Amino acid sequence: MTDSIKVVLDAMGGDYAPAEVVKGGIEALAKSDSLYLYMLGDETAVKVELDKYEYDHSRVSVIHCSETVEMSEPPVQAVMKKKDSSIVKGMLMVHRGEAQAFVSAGSTGAVLVGGQTKVGRLKGVERPPLAPLIPTDNERGCSLLIDCGANVDARPSMLVQFAKMGSIYMESVMGIASPTVGIVNIGAEEEKGNALVKETYPLLKECEDINFIGSIEARDIPSGVADVVVCEAFTGNIILKMYEGVALTLIDKIKAGMMSNLRSKIGALLVKPALKKTLKSFSMEQYGGAPMLGLNGLVVKTHGNSKSVEICNSILQCEQFEKQKINEKIRQRLS
Amino acid sequence: MTDSIKVVLDAMGGDYAPAEVVKGGIEALAKSDSLYLYMLGDETAVKVELDKYEYDHSRVSVIHCSETVEMSEPPVQAVMKKKDSSIVKGMLMVHRGEAQAFVSAGSTGAVLVGGQTKVGRLKGVERPPLAPLIPTDNERGCSLLIDCGANVDARPSMLVQFAKMGSIYMESVMGIASPTVGIVNIGAEEEKGNALVKETYPLLKECEDINFIGSIEARDIPSGVADVVVCEAFTGNIILKMYEGVALTLIDKIKAGMMSNLRSKIGALLVKPALKKTLKSFSMEQYGGAPMLGLNGLVVKTHGNSKSVEICNSILQCEQFEKQKINEKIRQRLS
Repeated sequence: MTDSIKVVLDAMGGDYAPAEVVKGGIEALAKSDSLYLYMLGDETAVKVELDKYEYDHSRVSVIHCSETVEMSEPPVQAVMKKKDSSIVKGMLMVHRGEAQAFVSAGSTGAVLVGGQTKVGRLKGVERPPLAPLIPTDNERGCSLLIDCGANVDARPSMLVQFAKMGSIYMESVMGIASPTVGIVNIGAEEEKGNALVKETYPLLKECEDINFIGSIEARDIPSGVADVVVCEAFTGNIILKMYEGVALTLIDKIKAGMMSNLRSKIGALLVKPALKKTLKSFSMEQYGGAPMLGLNGLVVKTHGNSKSVEICNSILQCEQFEKQKINEKIRQRLS
Repeated sequence: MTDSIKVVLDAMGGDYAPAEVVKGGIEALAKSDSLYLYMLGDETAVKVELDKYEYDHSRVSVIHCSETVEMSEPPVQAVMKKKDSSIVKGMLMVHRGEAQAFVSAGSTGAVLVGGQTKVGRLKGVERPPLAPLIPTDNERGCSLLIDCGANVDARPSMLVQFAKMGSIYMESVMGIASPTVGIVNIGAEEEKGNALVKETYPLLKECEDINFIGSIEARDIPSGVADVVVCEAFTGNIILKMYEGVALTLIDKIKAGMMSNLRSKIGALLVKPALKKTLKSFSMEQYGGAPMLGLNGLVVKTHGNSKSVEICNSILQCEQFEKQKINEKIRQRLS
């Protein structure tokens, strides 16, 4: 097992934990021979779930944690105090090199705080960004939105690092050659933007190791105008949340519209299967979770409502990350 | 005609000018007896359009302008140089009190620059915001997004003024009693946010003349969580553009999904009429244009692709604005 990739699973994190988390872990084991999983959480609860499946027992360890970080807890205090929680214990295992990656569907705040304080930053990284994959309507199918983390008011040099780390990720993990990089702005012209964008733009233009295409408007993000969408976390959060909010509201409206009379109800029955398939291809859940980049290891935050398929994809994403030696590439490019 | 409300129409602005602009003006005249319209633009072209309709000639003047501001022109230079354009001439008429409002579907940049430099700010207003109505999925049907203008990096005191002006607008023009005011943030807690939001939050909390409900997340904007959505212009621009981008992409996806097989194609025919109606109720165009508030008069910017119905609604919006004495209210509340 020397070559195996060791991933820590936060078995207690998420709306459907531990059942769906454990299930996702088992699914990942079936898909990859080189995985080893640490499942952290309430030992009894985790084992009840594990007993439902047949799997290679030599590739799973359950590590008991007596505490759980709740979604509603203030993250900084939770990470400081709950030393025997799956988040803190799991992150420290990555920090010590006992595992290469940590996957959690738990509290985003606690994962972000833990990533920074427990796993720790790679040397030279100013701020580790949280970078979700967002669905796009092009042949690639997704873009990387970097940063959506908890720390706002970034400096230009941080955005340059985001652009580089994001490019490495999209190239190595998603297999996109020379991914395009755009900075989110309120117009396409170089002179437009707020102080941060105006300062960052020329720095990005100078970078020879990224494929910078200039400013991009929010309107063009869903059509996939850039593979790496660079912005500071406040803006990134708004982009991500608008994605979810507009899509949910619109789909609700469409459903209501289809149910408005008998004719449309019959039509709805006929279009439903095709529509379901289409909307699935444009949902946030289709990819794995959001990687937190620039850490001494990998931390992946999946949606709070993750089912096994997303957990499984997140674990396989960690394997790809490790195999592609992303952190080595980040170290080289940022130095 | 002493009591009439005089509105200047930029007959040359927009993708369908002058035809749809003139048509919209004629429609507005039919709907309101107290309107007087100045139509500014190429006299011959405007008159060709006017001649297509029957209308009260005593309530329309055509004023010839030899220049036109193009959509692609740098706005500051255009407004400085093109003194005989409909935008500059019309704005100066409002400045001199010859008309109360100016409506344009032309270059947003030129309208914003013209509003600030030609119409001029109301005394006490730090920055005049551009505040579009965005569709929401609640019984009110829309919220005011304030600010989406060209000037970014606002100060907290400006956001407080936006909150007050937006409240007056929603109360007086849209008829919403005690409209709720939220500040766009990355979480609902008071301690969250960037420096600007953190500084603005306590100032808004202190305001006794607005119905402040605290931080709102972008995800909840489409469902209508607040009647007045306060943010600085960079953020506002992103919210507006994400609205458009996600909706367009999603509707494209849905259309493609419905066309994917025979069964769904038949269904599509049946749901189409009901769906069209629903989507119309959630489109950006259903209301008039975006008012630019805090000026010595009213400037309304309608979409570049405005058809007559939107032009007409924008003109009627000006009438309501004037009848409700919005500027007097703004002067009182900001002093």
